[in-house]
Amino acid sequence: MKIEHIGIAVDNLEAATKTYSTLLNTQPYKSETVESENVETVFFQTGDSKIELLGAINDDSVIAKYVEKKGEGMHHIAFEVDDIHAELDRLRREGFTVLNDQPKEGADNKLVAFVHPKDNHGVLVELCQGKG
Amino acid sequence: MKIEHIGIAVDNLEAATKTYSTLLNTQPYKSETVESENVETVFFQTGDSKIELLGAINDDSVIAKYVEKKGEGMHHIAFEVDDIHAELDRLRREGFTVLNDQPKEGADNKLVAFVHPKDNHGVLVELCQGKG
Repeated sequence: MKIEHIGIAVDNLEAATKTYSTLLNTQPYKSETVESENVETVFFQTGDSKIELLGAINDDSVIAKYVEKKGEGMHHIAFEVDDIHAELDRLRREGFTVLNDQPKEGADNKLVAFVHPKDNHGVLVELCQGKG
Repeated sequence: MKIEHIGIAVDNLEAATKTYSTLLNTQPYKSETVESENVETVFFQTGDSKIELLGAINDDSVIAKYVEKKGEGMHHIAFEVDDIHAELDRLRREGFTVLNDQPKEGADNKLVAFVHPKDNHGVLVELCQGKG
């Protein structure tokens, strides 16, 4: 597994994009709206991994609820795997709580599924697999 | 800049090491105590980046205070830079609050310095440079 990206929940995506462009000294290479999640995303390449800024596009978004409850900050770590179905089966057998019965379509043309933070010492873990 | 590691603050380092060994399906490659910070660290290699578990060794540790206040979870993102002094100067000029006057000795034989989370939409950012 490698770290595919770190998801950061922000209140104001435009302001955060400006901040991270300056911090990382590079421009984002992509922005993408994930309608099913009510989020807008902005991606920065940082070495072999990415920073994904996550902004809510309405109050129904999990990101809006997250920011309201916990404030802005790191939201999840995504690990890239070769076979997401096999990895989810392995983790279920090990007793982890997988939050999706089946992997779903995520940003960046990937299949994604999440593992509950209670099983990972407070860290929401995403597994993802490129759809090629 | 590349993501050098993600730091995760945990309450019970032994339990967390077991969890992340299973989650990542790999064993840690190193553990190290940073006396000056009152923390014990455990490192996992994940692709080109690392997961660093951080456990307090006493109540004076910033990690003990973090876990007490916010619970377990992601504590910081570390970005590797070639010239930490130049990057800190650049970020100071851009208006970021650097928390260390000078880079200090961190885990894993690195010079490290931190940028205040208020400037990074809630994310504590570490810059690090290998000492070679």
